Amino acid sequence: MIDVVALDGDDTLWHSENQFVMTQDRFTSLLAGHADPDELDARLMAHERENLQVFGYGVKGFTLSMIETAIEVTEGRIDTADIQAIIDGAKEMLQHPVELLDGVAETVAALAKDYRVMVITKGDLFHQESKLARSGLVEDLWQVEIVAEKDEPSYRRIFDRYGLDPATFVMVGNSVKSDILPVLALGGRAVHIEYELTWEMEHAEADKTHDGYWELDTIRDLPALLTRM
Amino acid sequence: MIDVVALDGDDTLWHSENQFVMTQDRFTSLLAGHADPDELDARLMAHERENLQVFGYGVKGFTLSMIETAIEVTEGRIDTADIQAIIDGAKEMLQHPVELLDGVAETVAALAKDYRVMVITKGDLFHQESKLARSGLVEDLWQVEIVAEKDEPSYRRIFDRYGLDPATFVMVGNSVKSDILPVLALGGRAVHIEYELTWEMEHAEADKTHDGYWELDTIRDLPALLTRM
Repeated sequence: MIDVVALDGDDTLWHSENQFVMTQDRFTSLLAGHADPDELDARLMAHERENLQVFGYGVKGFTLSMIETAIEVTEGRIDTADIQAIIDGAKEMLQHPVELLDGVAETVAALAKDYRVMVITKGDLFHQESKLARSGLVEDLWQVEIVAEKDEPSYRRIFDRYGLDPATFVMVGNSVKSDILPVLALGGRAVHIEYELTWEMEHAEADKTHDGYWELDTIRDLPALLTRM
Repeated sequence: MIDVVALDGDDTLWHSENQFVMTQDRFTSLLAGHADPDELDARLMAHERENLQVFGYGVKGFTLSMIETAIEVTEGRIDTADIQAIIDGAKEMLQHPVELLDGVAETVAALAKDYRVMVITKGDLFHQESKLARSGLVEDLWQVEIVAEKDEPSYRRIFDRYGLDPATFVMVGNSVKSDILPVLALGGRAVHIEYELTWEMEHAEADKTHDGYWELDTIRDLPALLTRM
């Protein structure tokens, strides 16, 4: 029944959000003398939210938002060495080794024997390509699609591009907003595997009674679930 | 003979490099008290070159390189208000109206009647998609490919993805390095239309005696050239 298995990248195949959280913790420490941590979080989130429409997703936009927030909360008094430290943190994030989630390598290799396996990931093209290249997964993948936003029009474009039938397509990912809701709306199936951390802007609720909706605790259980679909 | 006409985006369909030059001029003025313009250019270029491998192409990476350069040349004494001004400049660039080059709208519409027309552009996914959406060209395009780097492997992946024959493919663009050399190497044809400005990192020399190489002064002459190919 299932022909194409599409996998999300960040926090489904490899760890990502933990890097953002760690970087933000360092940012909080850096500005500890200037702002209360909760207030700082709120101000950074406000900048990120506003800048998302101009910068898009990814480390570089996040970094520019951190710099703006730092200038704002210190009323311009932040040391430029601290701004350089924020930029150095961005470079570390972008060059950080790719850490696959538990079970990913074996599961993707197993899936590739029975299905056309693709990755559909969003965010910064350069960083996503770099992570894919270093993931060791590429030879098991039929296609890779890196998109600016994972919404209904994006999935529809992908279906059109490869002539895919939503009825034989399943999307697997950690984000209800990006991986589950748009795919169910287009008549596909979706498997939610929650990650230990969820970015505030990805929060959404799934209709857990939907026919096409499944949940798993680990990607290791995906092959067995697919044979039951 | 020609089936697919692929067009570059930045400085082939719409103006781009002039925005970077204008932003860099403002950066030079901002730091006029701290560094000689030529020295500043050289330092910025050094940062851009080094950061390209981590940040990739695009406005956000360019902006982070400008901030690093500003901190360096002022030995940390740059005013944080000036750093905010650099970030504001990035936002202006990203939201700047899309200005098509002369003749582009009519030519792309005419080409779409006789060929499968695609755009192959490199750089920041979010910014490129945003420019395409605002270009008014999308309905004339068969496909859009936004890639991190326009080199032989990228073009080969595109040929494979759509089952294209290089012998019936022509690439049109302003960059010898990105639009001409890799396509000729793969057996395709390439049309160079020089833009008034070329970014230092895109400089390269074409073999003008190559069978598959053409030059035009304006995209307006492209339909007539294609019928002669």
